[in-house]
Amino acid sequence: MFDRGFLYGDSVYETCRTYGGVPFLFDRHLARLERSAARIGMALQGGLESIRSETLRALEAAANAVSAVRIVVTRGEREGVVNLDAASADGQNLVVIVRPFEPYPEALYRAGVAIEVVGVRRNDRAALDPAVKSGNYLNNVLALQQATARGAFECLMLNRDGDLTECSTSNVFVVAGGRVATPALECGLLDGITRGFALELLGELGIPAAEARLVPGDLARADEVFLTSSLKEILPVTRVDGRAVGSGAPGPVAAALIRRYRLATERE
Amino acid sequence: MFDRGFLYGDSVYETCRTYGGVPFLFDRHLARLERSAARIGMALQGGLESIRSETLRALEAAANAVSAVRIVVTRGEREGVVNLDAASADGQNLVVIVRPFEPYPEALYRAGVAIEVVGVRRNDRAALDPAVKSGNYLNNVLALQQATARGAFECLMLNRDGDLTECSTSNVFVVAGGRVATPALECGLLDGITRGFALELLGELGIPAAEARLVPGDLARADEVFLTSSLKEILPVTRVDGRAVGSGAPGPVAAALIRRYRLATERE
Repeated sequence: MFDRGFLYGDSVYETCRTYGGVPFLFDRHLARLERSAARIGMALQGGLESIRSETLRALEAAANAVSAVRIVVTRGEREGVVNLDAASADGQNLVVIVRPFEPYPEALYRAGVAIEVVGVRRNDRAALDPAVKSGNYLNNVLALQQATARGAFECLMLNRDGDLTECSTSNVFVVAGGRVATPALECGLLDGITRGFALELLGELGIPAAEARLVPGDLARADEVFLTSSLKEILPVTRVDGRAVGSGAPGPVAAALIRRYRLATERE
Repeated sequence: MFDRGFLYGDSVYETCRTYGGVPFLFDRHLARLERSAARIGMALQGGLESIRSETLRALEAAANAVSAVRIVVTRGEREGVVNLDAASADGQNLVVIVRPFEPYPEALYRAGVAIEVVGVRRNDRAALDPAVKSGNYLNNVLALQQATARGAFECLMLNRDGDLTECSTSNVFVVAGGRVATPALECGLLDGITRGFALELLGELGIPAAEARLVPGDLARADEVFLTSSLKEILPVTRVDGRAVGSGAPGPVAAALIRRYRLATERE
């Protein structure tokens, strides 16, 4: 009850999944956890190595075919104390949730999903930078509510200037004229691990890809749109705000990227 | 672990204190709890009356001379489920924390406190409206960190347009030329219970008071500045950004308001 993660969302976290029992791109997730913590003035007690070993121990004990892993580090607690001052808590609490993960059905990748650009704007960087993966996710919860109320799978949030940022738990990519673009970090979004990896894979595939300022009109003009996240991998979007994207079917860039991504997960 | 309050800060809350064992302005706090919940799409299960009776029961059991009460309602949980979709949780969880409260020392009211206008901006209304008293308080935690690092008691946040909004856990009032002003709700801030009550008491005292758009320059020109909150009551501010406010001592408006406020608490 007195944990600051519960009282204030004063925590940082990571989500990753396993392939063959191994958490994919685990080093990158751990490094980002440390960056998120530093951004809110927390030095991870015990360091990343203890978090790594606790996580691997939990994974081994669970022995799931596929696991989704959530690692949460909160700024700790002091029994009986409710005080916003970060100095009022002792220690940090580490929570590692390992649960069996059922990958999204292949039919979803074949059909693609629908997303909606919602009225809820993404948190402003000057208030609470979305680059910090923290326990403050009500902004995303409210945005997702708006999208699911309209039957969509995911929401897409704009920043206050009207630029595309990101979805509730995914980054977004837009393909037009053979070129791939994804919202630039300065638009206010999480530096997604799968987003970064997808940009690398696109480079390997020889497909031009860059970060950019994008607006809703870029979605209307797109040949392809897709989402990236550790649990969704590369997920094609075939409808935006009720309108078909391109031909209305997943496109070749997403298909090539999915193949490459899965090859990489098998290799690791 | 699976409670959405812990995972996402997906909760609403209220803080109040008791006088003579009775929670002050309790009806107003309960009504705001319901409004906060409604704003994030939660209908309070069991209604306000069960929350009222659970709180009174906890207060009776604690039998503190003075209590600080924190009432938290989360959007619930489902064992083993980590899913941002609000529909993925069952029930709601009610947490009532009753703890003995040591009122701030009288010396603090006599000397006044120092506040700092910080670089962290208040959450934007279009992203996560500060009028919703939710479990997402990392914005305030970060702002308070900046202020306490400079030795101040409280922070004061601006919105993205540069207007004054509120402090981490207080509203702010500015007195100039015998007129009192406090940031208007449309600037993006919590509709503080003590803020509203203070406006009423100022009316009773015949002191002109209004909501307004205020900027940092208004603080520099102020004769008095004070904070309001359920736990701080009416707390004079005598330094802003290291500079003395007016004479550098608490002023007559704050003094009159404190007397009137304490009279009201005794009456209730």
